[in-house]
Amino acid sequence: MDEFERIAKLYAPLAAGFEGALGLKDDAAVISMAPGEDLVVTADALVAEVHFLPEDAPGLIARKALRCNLSDLAAKGATPFAYLQTTALPREWGDDWLGEYAAGLALDQREFGVHLIGGDSTETPGPATISITAFGRVAQSTAIRRAGAGVGDRVFVSGTLGDAALGLMAIYGRIAGLMAPDRAFLVDRYRLPQPRVSLGPRLVGIARSAVDVSDGAVADLGHVCEVSGVGAVLDFGRVPLSAAAAAALGRSADLLAPILTGGDDYEILFTAPPACAGAIAAIAQEIGIPITEIGYIIEGHGVQVRDGAGRIVELARTGYRHFRG
Amino acid sequence: MDEFERIAKLYAPLAAGFEGALGLKDDAAVISMAPGEDLVVTADALVAEVHFLPEDAPGLIARKALRCNLSDLAAKGATPFAYLQTTALPREWGDDWLGEYAAGLALDQREFGVHLIGGDSTETPGPATISITAFGRVAQSTAIRRAGAGVGDRVFVSGTLGDAALGLMAIYGRIAGLMAPDRAFLVDRYRLPQPRVSLGPRLVGIARSAVDVSDGAVADLGHVCEVSGVGAVLDFGRVPLSAAAAAALGRSADLLAPILTGGDDYEILFTAPPACAGAIAAIAQEIGIPITEIGYIIEGHGVQVRDGAGRIVELARTGYRHFRG
Repeated sequence: MDEFERIAKLYAPLAAGFEGALGLKDDAAVISMAPGEDLVVTADALVAEVHFLPEDAPGLIARKALRCNLSDLAAKGATPFAYLQTTALPREWGDDWLGEYAAGLALDQREFGVHLIGGDSTETPGPATISITAFGRVAQSTAIRRAGAGVGDRVFVSGTLGDAALGLMAIYGRIAGLMAPDRAFLVDRYRLPQPRVSLGPRLVGIARSAVDVSDGAVADLGHVCEVSGVGAVLDFGRVPLSAAAAAALGRSADLLAPILTGGDDYEILFTAPPACAGAIAAIAQEIGIPITEIGYIIEGHGVQVRDGAGRIVELARTGYRHFRG
Repeated sequence: MDEFERIAKLYAPLAAGFEGALGLKDDAAVISMAPGEDLVVTADALVAEVHFLPEDAPGLIARKALRCNLSDLAAKGATPFAYLQTTALPREWGDDWLGEYAAGLALDQREFGVHLIGGDSTETPGPATISITAFGRVAQSTAIRRAGAGVGDRVFVSGTLGDAALGLMAIYGRIAGLMAPDRAFLVDRYRLPQPRVSLGPRLVGIARSAVDVSDGAVADLGHVCEVSGVGAVLDFGRVPLSAAAAAALGRSADLLAPILTGGDDYEILFTAPPACAGAIAAIAQEIGIPITEIGYIIEGHGVQVRDGAGRIVELARTGYRHFRG
């Protein structure tokens, strides 16, 4: 198929139902916002050999690329509705590859209620590069920012931390003694993030700051602290772990560092005044996603990790490094 | 510089003045539209060795990447105001390269009144890939589409056609007898497009369809015809040529094909009812950009190129091929 056939057969169906996508037959898309709404927009690029492996399943690559962006929108309190993508793909990745890739997008479009509304596709003599720009809506002036944490806020996080980092280590055989179901769970958490799109919009008016955990919990909380001009204490004893992560950590205390500093969790980490704890618990109950208080905001700067006894824990890494680059 | 330093030193200054960019310190940007406005959004990716050469001046690469997108917005009648970019760059392209690249963006931001509001930057083990998503505003429901050409419409184009295609041929030494100033003019037209941002918004309410000439005049008029369900006659005798292109064509009639089918002109090609000819002439006068009537819309499909005597001209190519890929 040439570019026009690919657009018509694989991509145009993904635009159906969004009038402003103009059937992907135009130079641009048109977005009409309702009065009183702001648009929230974010972009992420994934490069083969850096963020994914060329042999990964095309559908999973598509879904991960999309979900990273949906996670960013969720952390701002926005409800996603559309995205653009540009792809630079090796010529030898033929129509079968692209068919599976588009099928992955179709799956997630249904799951998350978004539409492809435009973009560009080109060939590259190098590794595949996929760039997605995603759009969400939020009530005017209510988008949750990183810069909003205040001294005394509590730090909360959705779901569990560290699964993706351990999953990546498991893929490379760097975790001993993993049971097969635990390994499968951790690897899946790495391969297919669960953006917390049902949670983000519920945090509007409650969270004073928020970020999605993509660089690692310590680094992302650090980003919040830096732009908010505050510090934070992260209580390791309260960090929510999956059963698989807890079992792995039980066998090797060295996994504490990757759990707190590894990336790709795509949970929402946010701060809120203590008085909001009840409302937050109610939201967690309602949407069926656990939310755990894991620390608090202090004067100063930087993130201190403390253990159950209040002692400061030194971690080897405070950022996320991809498996290459 | 690491990624955070690069953002702070090179990119954050490009976001100054656009509040919703959040200083490039957040996961996303916030865009507030005025009531009665639509957002128009477009994305293009440029790949080294396909769309530009790695040794090209970084500032020119930046400006070309941005301008391709601004041209798409102009063709929709939109006024650009912001853009996101994702870059995947080889590690060995250091801070000097990036400094010049950012300086190019800064130049064009001033020229076109746009701001960088977000994005992503990563390394790649392959050729550089730059993806830009650009945003424009247009009065609600007035964006000019490709699908709008009606039988009897006249076909107009801004500026001159073919310069960029001849410029690219000149770079590769494929045009004989070029005078140095003519060569410089044509190469510049290839290297640095002039998006018609002052023209596009003026065409709202006048043009029934529009496209920017990036694939070549015949191909792009063909796109308009296809989605509009009409055909077109393009009168070659009326096609506006620069003095440099006219001189080259005078020496070699073979250049007719690249002039009409070569890409990268970034002029606006549009259709409008004959009664609008006077208004269009007035706009051309006012903004100082020539606009020329070059054909008309007919029933049927496809684009016929006719010479001054009305004979059909067969062209070797009807699409644009990049110099590689």
